[in-house]
Amino acid sequence: MRVIVIGATGTIGSAVAAALSARYEVVAVGNTKGAIRVDLASADSIERMFDAVGAFDALVCAAGRAAFAGLDDLKDADFQLGLTNKLMGQVNLVRFGRKRMRDNGSFTLTSGVLSREPMKGSASISMVNAGLEGFARAAALELPRGIRINVVSPPWVTETLIARKMDPSIGLPAATIAKAYLSSVEGTASGQTLDPRTFAAT
Amino acid sequence: MRVIVIGATGTIGSAVAAALSARYEVVAVGNTKGAIRVDLASADSIERMFDAVGAFDALVCAAGRAAFAGLDDLKDADFQLGLTNKLMGQVNLVRFGRKRMRDNGSFTLTSGVLSREPMKGSASISMVNAGLEGFARAAALELPRGIRINVVSPPWVTETLIARKMDPSIGLPAATIAKAYLSSVEGTASGQTLDPRTFAAT
Repeated sequence: MRVIVIGATGTIGSAVAAALSARYEVVAVGNTKGAIRVDLASADSIERMFDAVGAFDALVCAAGRAAFAGLDDLKDADFQLGLTNKLMGQVNLVRFGRKRMRDNGSFTLTSGVLSREPMKGSASISMVNAGLEGFARAAALELPRGIRINVVSPPWVTETLIARKMDPSIGLPAATIAKAYLSSVEGTASGQTLDPRTFAAT
Repeated sequence: MRVIVIGATGTIGSAVAAALSARYEVVAVGNTKGAIRVDLASADSIERMFDAVGAFDALVCAAGRAAFAGLDDLKDADFQLGLTNKLMGQVNLVRFGRKRMRDNGSFTLTSGVLSREPMKGSASISMVNAGLEGFARAAALELPRGIRINVVSPPWVTETLIARKMDPSIGLPAATIAKAYLSSVEGTASGQTLDPRTFAAT
């Protein structure tokens, strides 16, 4: 199986790529690093990325930008960042990638715990994450040739919390979060939002 | 109490306006009809609408456009319609209206059952509806002065189903759906997604 991992140099993406590469061919795609790059905010960039990759069986996206800021501080451009990059960027991976994906392939996208568990400052991110989950629920009904789609909704990542000198106990290690992505790639679920915390004990 | 009802000439909006006007002053706002109008896709139009209305206690929005079409047929512009009109239009009502709203007021926005119960053709609408619900969950944590926000997620409307010669048994009458909006305006809930089907028996 040939699996595209977008955001492969990120904290979660690198853990997912490491886990997948034990069993599959991983095509690592970065935003600013690596041989193959993509700008999620650009439909043209996404099309060019698929042209460069060629045939593939599965796509994991662990990338996507959105703005965290208080409701008083979020500007129009902050909302547009999340809508254009993390939301429509990942939607466009499905729109443009599904015709190039082999039979019985899968898309695994990334939302985040703020979708269902908001906090002050998350209005834009919660909107984007929830919207992506809604898209995946619906798109799953229309994908052809056995192709599946799921969204992983990661909690805070332990490594990120440590780097930011925050309390690491509320997070999960990236390697544990990666289990949810592997479950989506290897399993039979479709249209689901997967919470890595439910995979933590496995 | 002075309540703005946006989409007051629509099937749901007119039922909500009728129910509210028994007890409150209703300021009816339409898209193409009425003395006060608003184009949800335009931030300037929303600001002008608030200028025209003046002081108010609550806002109900039963308007917002999004495209229903198969995943193969949805164009970039179809996704943008829902993001710009139904999603950011309603988000902007909150962003621009909350500073003008009186203490202890409320926003009641409209998503739709396709958020959680998708069907073929609903990928864009499901995304938009779910995104709005995610926004409301988060924004509720930051609204000042006792101001609340909820989203009503209407099922199919009986009147609409009859007009389209579809099976009316899967819908609820607009007057029943209006109960969920009244509950949001008059109750204490905030950050919730209200399902009118749970109000049907009351």
